[in-house]
Amino acid sequence: MDRKISLTGIKPTGNLHIGNYFGAIKPALELSKTYDARYFIADYHALNSMKEPAGLHASIREVAAGWLAGGLDPERVIFYRQSSIPEVFELTTMIMAFTAKGLMNRAHAYKASVAENNEKGDDPDAGINMGLFTYPVLMAADIILFDSDVVPVGKDQVQHIEMAQDIAQAVNANYKQQVLKVPQAVTSEDTAVVPGLDGRKMSKSYGNTVPLFAPENQLHKCIMRIVTNSQGVEAPKDPDSSQIFLLYRLFASQEEQAALAARYRAGGMGWGEAKEELFRVVNRELGPIRERFNAIISDPEGLDRILAAGAEKARPIAAGVVKRFRKAAGID
Amino acid sequence: MDRKISLTGIKPTGNLHIGNYFGAIKPALELSKTYDARYFIADYHALNSMKEPAGLHASIREVAAGWLAGGLDPERVIFYRQSSIPEVFELTTMIMAFTAKGLMNRAHAYKASVAENNEKGDDPDAGINMGLFTYPVLMAADIILFDSDVVPVGKDQVQHIEMAQDIAQAVNANYKQQVLKVPQAVTSEDTAVVPGLDGRKMSKSYGNTVPLFAPENQLHKCIMRIVTNSQGVEAPKDPDSSQIFLLYRLFASQEEQAALAARYRAGGMGWGEAKEELFRVVNRELGPIRERFNAIISDPEGLDRILAAGAEKARPIAAGVVKRFRKAAGID
Repeated sequence: MDRKISLTGIKPTGNLHIGNYFGAIKPALELSKTYDARYFIADYHALNSMKEPAGLHASIREVAAGWLAGGLDPERVIFYRQSSIPEVFELTTMIMAFTAKGLMNRAHAYKASVAENNEKGDDPDAGINMGLFTYPVLMAADIILFDSDVVPVGKDQVQHIEMAQDIAQAVNANYKQQVLKVPQAVTSEDTAVVPGLDGRKMSKSYGNTVPLFAPENQLHKCIMRIVTNSQGVEAPKDPDSSQIFLLYRLFASQEEQAALAARYRAGGMGWGEAKEELFRVVNRELGPIRERFNAIISDPEGLDRILAAGAEKARPIAAGVVKRFRKAAGID
Repeated sequence: MDRKISLTGIKPTGNLHIGNYFGAIKPALELSKTYDARYFIADYHALNSMKEPAGLHASIREVAAGWLAGGLDPERVIFYRQSSIPEVFELTTMIMAFTAKGLMNRAHAYKASVAENNEKGDDPDAGINMGLFTYPVLMAADIILFDSDVVPVGKDQVQHIEMAQDIAQAVNANYKQQVLKVPQAVTSEDTAVVPGLDGRKMSKSYGNTVPLFAPENQLHKCIMRIVTNSQGVEAPKDPDSSQIFLLYRLFASQEEQAALAARYRAGGMGWGEAKEELFRVVNRELGPIRERFNAIISDPEGLDRILAAGAEKARPIAAGVVKRFRKAAGID
């Protein structure tokens, strides 16, 4: 296999919504067409903020089932839980020795937390645990451990990849050989921004989401709640300034989009009807995904088997990289 | 087995000297009489400062052979390399999430490095890598991973045990159950201070050591180099102010000590003769140790087998603790 390796980390957050689906899941799964793609659930990263066991346990399964339902094919890619790969923690320890503390001091997320504490007059490090502070090291290990060539990230994550590069280069320079592959960031400009129910970007923190796996009646209710202006039925409407239409575009064919846009402009169609039409196409796409999700999540043992099989594919790769590093370091 | 568990970490430094033997090896091995004693070579701690592979590789074997030659019985205790226990790195990652960054800021060793940098007008974190900064977390994991009851430490290390206590307690408090055992420090008041060749405490950094495994002729030369005053042969001498005699006490029986002290006080014995008498008792004790050391170090495969067997005994214990933690955390 000559293809380059891509790695995608998945935060185990429950209650996936269609913003995640179009903004994260779909573009990440596209990678498997051109790359030897690997995906992992970052469950130990989650431990830094999720200290409630039942919630964390459930979130791991929900997000795994969500990605599988969304189209991740565990036969074609490698899909595993971070916590199933002990080598990632060993590599983390190894690269700690090659990571300048100053590099961590400059991490955006850490600096933002410190700034927030300073503003409140708190101790600069109040409420910051070492898991959060060393997050970029664990993330670098996640990446480096699989000889990843590229890591698709949002622009706010580019610094993490630069840190992974710094660390890998420091190791290679010390041992005067290419022990670790230096990864590259891939940022995509055109990730769909999914509008939420209130017109703002769809986001869990705004409470304006359309859940990905909600039952049909709940999905219907959700879409009927979309905020509109007070234009009457007869008034001609502008599709491009309607978030109903913006959402519609994500789910409808070109022909459907053209047809609905024409009805908007012609007048005679009320918002309620537009919402019903939106519901129809959303439910058409999400229906099968929801069914797959429900099937997967109701068979937790089957799901765990899928993840265990992925870990079995991942571990020999990881073990190879750690062995290479140990040999170079004299810890053999 | 009802005995409490003790854990001793061993820094892989080569060129052991008799200061190490009396100050570290002998008292640590005494523990095995009262405790279920475990000993490990902290090779990943060493990576923070030893970036030269051949040197690190050799140091690991030398220190292992040194402790075995010095009396560590791998059949009666558990003796392993830290790097053979992947669970220690996973536990490190887990407890990072429960370690306040402020706790690390207050670590004595870190603060000392920062103070040194400030004095030089450097960046406070200049030359400090994340391995050094997070050292107390890895050390806490070393300890907690084996359900250790007690950790024998020098007074300068007590803070590390207090940190391990803090971390274990934070985990237990969060999950409202005793997930991790809270270890206790044991400091010994009466560890022998071994005088060096120049009268100061024996220490590698003073260059005043008597090597533990030097060949007989080199050992002889070394002892003959001990600095003395200019009292002639006939002058009565004070045993208690002579470092020759202070060293002699470590190796000689009560009777021998009384006899030599009498000869000191009587006069008629020169320093050369006192040194020969010292060499005789030193060589009597070190001879068999040196022979064992040479036999062990000349069979590297046999040595690695001993360490691998120790790891095999250690891993199920470690795996049990990690499993307990994972279950409590919902990462199962």
